[in-house]
Amino acid sequence: MAVAEPDFLAELGAWLRIPSVSARPEHAVDVRRSAEWLCEALWRAGFPVAELWETAGHPAVFAEWPATDPAAPVILVYGHHDVQPVEQDEWDTPPFEPVRRGDELFGRGAADDKGQVVSHLFAARLAVAACGGQAPPVTLKVLVEGEEESGSRHFATLLRGHRERLACDAVIVSDTPMLGPQTPSICIGMRGLADCEIDVFGPDRDIHSGSFGGGVPNPAHALAELVAAMHDGLGRVALPGFYDRVRPLDGRERAALARLPFDETRWLRESAQSGAAVGEAGFSTLERIWARPTAEVNGLWSGYTGPGNKTVIPRSAHAKISFRLVPNQQPGEVITAFREFVADRLPAGMRVVIRAGGPGVRPCVTPADSPVLQAAIRAVGAVFGGEVLLTREGGSGPEADLAEILAVPVVFVGFGLSDDRIHAANERVLVSRLLKGAEALGELWIDLGSGAAG
Amino acid sequence: MAVAEPDFLAELGAWLRIPSVSARPEHAVDVRRSAEWLCEALWRAGFPVAELWETAGHPAVFAEWPATDPAAPVILVYGHHDVQPVEQDEWDTPPFEPVRRGDELFGRGAADDKGQVVSHLFAARLAVAACGGQAPPVTLKVLVEGEEESGSRHFATLLRGHRERLACDAVIVSDTPMLGPQTPSICIGMRGLADCEIDVFGPDRDIHSGSFGGGVPNPAHALAELVAAMHDGLGRVALPGFYDRVRPLDGRERAALARLPFDETRWLRESAQSGAAVGEAGFSTLERIWARPTAEVNGLWSGYTGPGNKTVIPRSAHAKISFRLVPNQQPGEVITAFREFVADRLPAGMRVVIRAGGPGVRPCVTPADSPVLQAAIRAVGAVFGGEVLLTREGGSGPEADLAEILAVPVVFVGFGLSDDRIHAANERVLVSRLLKGAEALGELWIDLGSGAAG
Repeated sequence: MAVAEPDFLAELGAWLRIPSVSARPEHAVDVRRSAEWLCEALWRAGFPVAELWETAGHPAVFAEWPATDPAAPVILVYGHHDVQPVEQDEWDTPPFEPVRRGDELFGRGAADDKGQVVSHLFAARLAVAACGGQAPPVTLKVLVEGEEESGSRHFATLLRGHRERLACDAVIVSDTPMLGPQTPSICIGMRGLADCEIDVFGPDRDIHSGSFGGGVPNPAHALAELVAAMHDGLGRVALPGFYDRVRPLDGRERAALARLPFDETRWLRESAQSGAAVGEAGFSTLERIWARPTAEVNGLWSGYTGPGNKTVIPRSAHAKISFRLVPNQQPGEVITAFREFVADRLPAGMRVVIRAGGPGVRPCVTPADSPVLQAAIRAVGAVFGGEVLLTREGGSGPEADLAEILAVPVVFVGFGLSDDRIHAANERVLVSRLLKGAEALGELWIDLGSGAAG
Repeated sequence: MAVAEPDFLAELGAWLRIPSVSARPEHAVDVRRSAEWLCEALWRAGFPVAELWETAGHPAVFAEWPATDPAAPVILVYGHHDVQPVEQDEWDTPPFEPVRRGDELFGRGAADDKGQVVSHLFAARLAVAACGGQAPPVTLKVLVEGEEESGSRHFATLLRGHRERLACDAVIVSDTPMLGPQTPSICIGMRGLADCEIDVFGPDRDIHSGSFGGGVPNPAHALAELVAAMHDGLGRVALPGFYDRVRPLDGRERAALARLPFDETRWLRESAQSGAAVGEAGFSTLERIWARPTAEVNGLWSGYTGPGNKTVIPRSAHAKISFRLVPNQQPGEVITAFREFVADRLPAGMRVVIRAGGPGVRPCVTPADSPVLQAAIRAVGAVFGGEVLLTREGGSGPEADLAEILAVPVVFVGFGLSDDRIHAANERVLVSRLLKGAEALGELWIDLGSGAAG
């Protein structure tokens, strides 16, 4: 089985030109265009049913292609058609004008997640062709949401509202990277996410730092002190009860992580592009980024930030803060703990407002004994070659909702790489990996349809 | 002696319409227009000489009106014609369209410092009229710079270059407030200023807080930790050697400050508009804001600050930080101490750049035995009524350069109020105070010309 590369690039290239940035209200029309484009692409791929599903926010896309055998397994493919915001001036080429250089295809969404969704369109074609050209060997359902990059605010409601049409035996998620270009791997866990914005208010207006400085509190200092206190000297998150629900890694899990080929120096240089690996004392870097919870400032602003100087005590200071969570932490409880943490430390003369970004995302793990996971390991191993290693992913998606609301295992079969610069400037994907990914998914549908797993 | 209010408001109103924001490059042409306007206003007031003095930045204005008696004292008036930047959307009325409501005149620069400079134009007219209409009783020189609100970068060079034409017996500065509307006062000291911008660099680009969070350092955290460490638990600035040169307040000075009528509750509510008076342990609020040094964050920014969330570890974090200084601190030494402070604390994997905002401003005090100070106390007391109290000012101007380069005492005779909202939205001035100020200055020229002080 093989995919025609020009066809693949024509579809993906057209989709990448739609700036479906779900976090920016001015792009709402583009997110809708992106959903409409995907419906048409699903029809072109052969899906007999493809429809827009409205939400209170951006629309999702649902498609279905039943197997001939009504007893065949039912697989729900999950992906997202929205993309991260872009800082235009940091990109070498315009983010919504895809450019190919060698095996690299540059553009916002190339890896996260449009490229991987397009792999599914071609995987379905491959599997159908291999089974006589009429229907796939498993019943394929596809759900591609439009709000993943802005917190999947309405995703749980969408799942609950369409639970019957979404009924399936397993969910396949293609929104994760492999360990390395020569190292096929499957992710068996993602971290959860809780996020909030904090506003610290001091004086009723910006006041003169000469006339008043030294005599009244500065909200920028207060916010800095809160951020500094978020971690203790050992790099642990200092929120009350933050670790109470954290399921400790057992010896077998730690040994499996330690056995993975991980070149920290290369990871620092090429992926993280950071000068040092630091974090919670007593844990390795892979443990820290995949299996331990975090607290991070994503944005910070206060006072005068223009050119020159303006000697004010700012009236307010603001931060966007997010927490990555591991089983069995709950997003709502973490935001509550952050509120307590702040309330305990707020200096005199300050007022604070904390707004949760939404319900958050629960952490998610794939059961090790899932037959779909075992089939995915076989298919990925057959196409990419070599032992398929089991990894985790530090990022977060709405996978926990899929697992919980649909009551099925979630298996992550993704084809990106950790240095694809998702969420950053110059996002790219390796085209060859998306094509092989389509092949592997086609093999997986055939494997599952043959009754080897079901 | 009295000033014709409509004439006064016509002059000041026209000047306030020129947005002479020296910190913003796009306003350079307006700062020049402001200087040109002032030259013409000085000619209208009767000054035989008024000229633009170029600097490497924005132009200053110099004017001179010799007394008939060549032995009369020579007084140099200092002010500035540039203004602070504005945040348009925080103003109730457009900042450069002056509006009068009752005794209040609203507009950027109304109090700081255009209103007070216009008082000098009318004071000169009054004193000339009182002395026969030909010349003032003292030789009046006027120097109004265009870079005070952006650090007076070229002021010392300007003073050195024109030292002979600026030769005088004393400098009168009108850029300070009185203690209260019913409490005439004269300021006898201002704090100095050192400022800088700090950039903390982490990863080479914004990176995904899920993929990398917990494993690499976050520059927003590092900056927050630096800011939090800038003060110790007693509210003291924690830079190495920061207090080494600070001349302690003696018992007489502290007693004089304690004797001043200062309603802290009202000051908090109406001037500082803050919820609490906090600061260095062991000092009163007036001591803290007038006679003790400070460290303040004026601006702070890092990462994603737009709507929604973007879960990145920011590539960098930035702050604008300024220090208010008291005798005998030196701005350059304080910035050096800040560099040491940061170097001692910078976490692994971070790079830092600190840029000083300029040479800074030294603190300045008026000698208690200055005869010009004594004459100013008499004139202000006569016009405003009651005992004239001696205060200090927490803000900073280039007065220390005037005192040092011209080798004369600097006396502060200002007519603003601490709740004029200078440097903030809705800056205003009380018109009646500017008119009385003009009268008091006219009296002062007559007093000094009579030989009572010289």
